[in-house]
Amino acid sequence: MQLNAGCELQFEAQGPTPLVLMLRPRSGAGQWIMREEYQITPSVNVTEFTDMYGNLCQRLVAPEGPFSIHFSATVQTADAIDVEPGAPYTPVEDLPDDVLHYTLPSRYCQSDQLGDLAAEITNAVEPGYDQAEAIRKWINENVKYQYGTSDASTSAVDTANARVGVCRDFTHLGISLCRALNIPARMVVGYLYQLKPMDLHAWFEAYIDGRWFTFDATQQQPRGNRITVAYGRDAADVAFTTQFGPMTLNDMKVWVDPAEIAEN
Amino acid sequence: MQLNAGCELQFEAQGPTPLVLMLRPRSGAGQWIMREEYQITPSVNVTEFTDMYGNLCQRLVAPEGPFSIHFSATVQTADAIDVEPGAPYTPVEDLPDDVLHYTLPSRYCQSDQLGDLAAEITNAVEPGYDQAEAIRKWINENVKYQYGTSDASTSAVDTANARVGVCRDFTHLGISLCRALNIPARMVVGYLYQLKPMDLHAWFEAYIDGRWFTFDATQQQPRGNRITVAYGRDAADVAFTTQFGPMTLNDMKVWVDPAEIAEN
Amino acid sequence: MQLNAGCELQFEAQGPTPLVLMLRPRSGAGQWIMREEYQITPSVNVTEFTDMYGNLCQRLVAPEGPFSIHFSATVQTADAIDVEPGAPYTPVEDLPDDVLHYTLPSRYCQSDQLGDLAAEITNAVEPGYDQAEAIRKWINENVKYQYGTSDASTSAVDTANARVGVCRDFTHLGISLCRALNIPARMVVGYLYQLKPMDLHAWFEAYIDGRWFTFDATQQQPRGNRITVAYGRDAADVAFTTQFGPMTLNDMKVWVDPAEIAEN
Amino acid sequence: MQLNAGCELQFEAQGPTPLVLMLRPRSGAGQWIMREEYQITPSVNVTEFTDMYGNLCQRLVAPEGPFSIHFSATVQTADAIDVEPGAPYTPVEDLPDDVLHYTLPSRYCQSDQLGDLAAEITNAVEPGYDQAEAIRKWINENVKYQYGTSDASTSAVDTANARVGVCRDFTHLGISLCRALNIPARMVVGYLYQLKPMDLHAWFEAYIDGRWFTFDATQQQPRGNRITVAYGRDAADVAFTTQFGPMTLNDMKVWVDPAEIAEN
Repeated sequence: MQLNAGCELQFEAQGPTPLVLMLRPRSGAGQWIMREEYQITPSVNVTEFTDMYGNLCQRLVAPEGPFSIHFSATVQTADAIDVEPGAPYTPVEDLPDDVLHYTLPSRYCQSDQLGDLAAEITNAVEPGYDQAEAIRKWINENVKYQYGTSDASTSAVDTANARVGVCRDFTHLGISLCRALNIPARMVVGYLYQLKPMDLHAWFEAYIDGRWFTFDATQQQPRGNRITVAYGRDAADVAFTTQFGPMTLNDMKVWVDPAEIAEN
Repeated sequence: MQLNAGCELQFEAQGPTPLVLMLRPRSGAGQWIMREEYQITPSVNVTEFTDMYGNLCQRLVAPEGPFSIHFSATVQTADAIDVEPGAPYTPVEDLPDDVLHYTLPSRYCQSDQLGDLAAEITNAVEPGYDQAEAIRKWINENVKYQYGTSDASTSAVDTANARVGVCRDFTHLGISLCRALNIPARMVVGYLYQLKPMDLHAWFEAYIDGRWFTFDATQQQPRGNRITVAYGRDAADVAFTTQFGPMTLNDMKVWVDPAEIAEN
Repeated sequence: MQLNAGCELQFEAQGPTPLVLMLRPRSGAGQWIMREEYQITPSVNVTEFTDMYGNLCQRLVAPEGPFSIHFSATVQTADAIDVEPGAPYTPVEDLPDDVLHYTLPSRYCQSDQLGDLAAEITNAVEPGYDQAEAIRKWINENVKYQYGTSDASTSAVDTANARVGVCRDFTHLGISLCRALNIPARMVVGYLYQLKPMDLHAWFEAYIDGRWFTFDATQQQPRGNRITVAYGRDAADVAFTTQFGPMTLNDMKVWVDPAEIAEN
Repeated sequence: MQLNAGCELQFEAQGPTPLVLMLRPRSGAGQWIMREEYQITPSVNVTEFTDMYGNLCQRLVAPEGPFSIHFSATVQTADAIDVEPGAPYTPVEDLPDDVLHYTLPSRYCQSDQLGDLAAEITNAVEPGYDQAEAIRKWINENVKYQYGTSDASTSAVDTANARVGVCRDFTHLGISLCRALNIPARMVVGYLYQLKPMDLHAWFEAYIDGRWFTFDATQQQPRGNRITVAYGRDAADVAFTTQFGPMTLNDMKVWVDPAEIAEN
């Protein structure tokens, strides 16, 4: 369906602060950006580049004082995610060169330390899609979703122990468990229609049978109508905002509405 | 200033026709895309990729029958282009690796065959900016701007002989003459405020003193307020539309207006 | 088989001359570089970069006077090229993004002007591999191989008219005729075992049924044991040496021997 | 000077095991690969690709049983590293786009948790080169070099606490402390002439005053004659070998000799 999605961020900078933003989604296989608006107040010089994952990144220096960002887009999305029970595991030797590094441990995804848990969860499951789905389901059923239980340094190993976290933590754990089975997995950040409470969201994709599939451990029954903003190995690669200096986020709004309804 | 720019293309496809479009500008050092709208009628699946010059390309298959594209954007542009008389020539050995190939001949820019003309035009001019500006001025004064005098196969050598052409031909000649002096030069396609008659436009950039400068041989006094849509070696790289099959362009509108005034 | 291949180039520079060399093959799907030697006399500072096609390029400034380059490698190659009569045409809409530009005209391959000839040659032939093979065979039978009949400015249209040329011209014509049928085609330069007389060689690849196939119009029965040095759209992209100043090539030796036999 | 450097690895694979190797250095600004040999026994099919940092990676499947790799190269290296006390800090807003991500925390370099230590070490030191050098010197004087005190999961925070480790740990700590000051830093793995005991080595580079400088915390007085094999954010990016299955490294030899002396 067509969605109007966007966010508004209100900062207060204690001095001139370099910022890197990752807020502009790209059109691609799964989504088409029909309309887009990107406002920065006060107006400053912004440049844009593409990082090594293909994400669009905006660079600027926020001046001292209040600083706000308003982004909104109308996007054509798919109503459902593809599911394919039984899709076979892709052997490492058949992975495309640029997918290979998604099998390795990364900042928050210590896949090398979670092999036992991955084996246990996927015991008696066929290699491939069914493993990733078993992992997703296990996390959904065994990790409690609760705000304020984790922070920017929480990793998959922490979450495997604490069994509590938010979408970012669920995602790191899902990625790590897949990689522990040599299934490439990557983090996705973006928007999800009807997410409750509405917020920026994170989920993961696993590479199975020659393509990427969507998995979301925060939901019992993962839905479509997702807008991908950025891909990466884990949260270290896909921060919506990275600031180089003291700056306070005072307010943040996120919305995802059917495009037929007038936008915020 | 802030500009509203856009175009509308009306096609008639004789059968399902694969299309590659290069219509979406990217934010970058010189411009900021504040708002953007991209409509395709009838709605079809579109994917987007980045080509080897960093341009955004949209792929789709137009169905048989009428097919239209509407693109519009609000863009913050620079009011003037940078000029820097006397800026020194960058020796080949100091060029960045990814600039080097812009010294070589390409499809429409046979720089190897235009060395004598380049030497003649820039005789007694200091190497660097002043050479590129002498070339630009020479073309402006010696080549007649006239629609219908060239076509998709017209090259810089043709234009050097015929001394007549349109913006694309002026640009190819300017690029070729710069390259003949080992000054890297590339084609730019996009929008120019107050172009008369309004149309999609082409100009060139030359790499001097460690950066790219804008040159436009179609104007006596090149102005700012330009929106770059794509870069490439010459027109072979930066077609706004490339079609793989029989399809007729029936109508095309282009506009560039101050953003304060309501958009078309 | 394992081949020892190499070349030796003797230059005389009239002054310090920037050079870009494309002489170092890369290991890849079809070949493994087991041993490699690269000498430059007199010794100068050399840097290396990867161009946009993935070719390794070496940059240096040759000093005034004699200058020589000696490159040799031992390479594991495939004894035969893959042939697959009947392999189906890949529709444009199914081409990978980075293959797409190989359908377009380029400096020496004016595919847009050779549609009639392509249609004539492949009349009554199934789309795909058989078209490319019909083109290759037609060139082999209808274009005369003769040194000294073409030069650095000879294009595919020239060769289609003159019906005479060398490996470079055969290749440009083959590429153009494939592209005229929307079959992506690219130039390959490198070494071929048992080429007579021995020289650096050029041939082409066409993208069919989801992969690249090797075609060589200079041979009745194309053989394997090829070493690829570089890929590109045409000769403009894959010069073994590009010089930016006056420099004379006084002597050039090329060899390809079975690795069991002591190398030149 | 000209160095003969190389390594020999002897594995025993318990079954067919996919391997990714990063053993082939690239010619570049600081080094020229004059000769190179790469043998794999038993001979298997190997393909090569370039990762997102520009490193050459070799892929293969080792068969069950003994498997050995022999790599050697003759490389022209610089006798000394560049040092530039007083070179000024490059503000974040002036960093090249592709350097920016080297300011962020990564798998083993939790720069966000080491700000206090970085501030303490560089207290009263001018921003830029002198900070990085103060960090390097502090590590050299305060962390004890000792084999067997760390493993593949040891991170910079661990080393900051334990104050003991090997070259890899010294490097992770140096990188993290630089990043904590918003100085981009990256890991380098390769060979160092006269390293005692001889082994594969790791050090770091920091981006200061518009370029990369070499720092090696394992040495009192860092020397030149280094051969870079790969760059990355930390050890997660630049493993010499990555195996996907059970495989034992039974023996490993490393050598770096003056090229005048016959090679191992």
